[in-house]
Amino acid sequence: MDNNIEIIGFVAAFLTTAAFLPQVYKTWKTKDVTGLSLPMLLMFFTGIILWLIYAFYINSPSMIMANSITVVSSFFLIYFKIRYQKK
Amino acid sequence: MDNNIEIIGFVAAFLTTAAFLPQVYKTWKTKDVTGLSLPMLLMFFTGIILWLIYAFYINSPSMIMANSITVVSSFFLIYFKIRYQKK
Repeated sequence: MDNNIEIIGFVAAFLTTAAFLPQVYKTWKTKDVTGLSLPMLLMFFTGIILWLIYAFYINSPSMIMANSITVVSSFFLIYFKIRYQKK
Repeated sequence: MDNNIEIIGFVAAFLTTAAFLPQVYKTWKTKDVTGLSLPMLLMFFTGIILWLIYAFYINSPSMIMANSITVVSSFFLIYFKIRYQKK
């Protein structure tokens, strides 16, 4: 894997994961999960797990980093959705 | 690029982009952009552009597909945010 393209990958990883974190923080603070859809979260989570497998297979450090962080943050969103959803 | 791993990539692409589209549709229908942050959208959009460059460089068809769709949908979110934001 070329080093220059990995730099682009790491900047991409930083920008896309950083843009996702405020959503997680906001949901945690407000406990407002009405705007979140559990089926969509589960689809997204499964998709990220597959991207992570893909990233390991093609041996892409920037993709492994980005998808590892996003797996954790989307797992938190699923947990918040289940825990804070009004019965 | 191995064909089996590309199948995993395309399933990942389908799941992660499909999970994103209802947000775009909902924003378009409700014109409610209060939950969207313009700096975050611009960060995300820039990150996706970089992932697209990365995908072309490593010649990954599934990443090119996923990031092309997400570039378009996040562009729409930016457009909606600017157009529907209350002055």
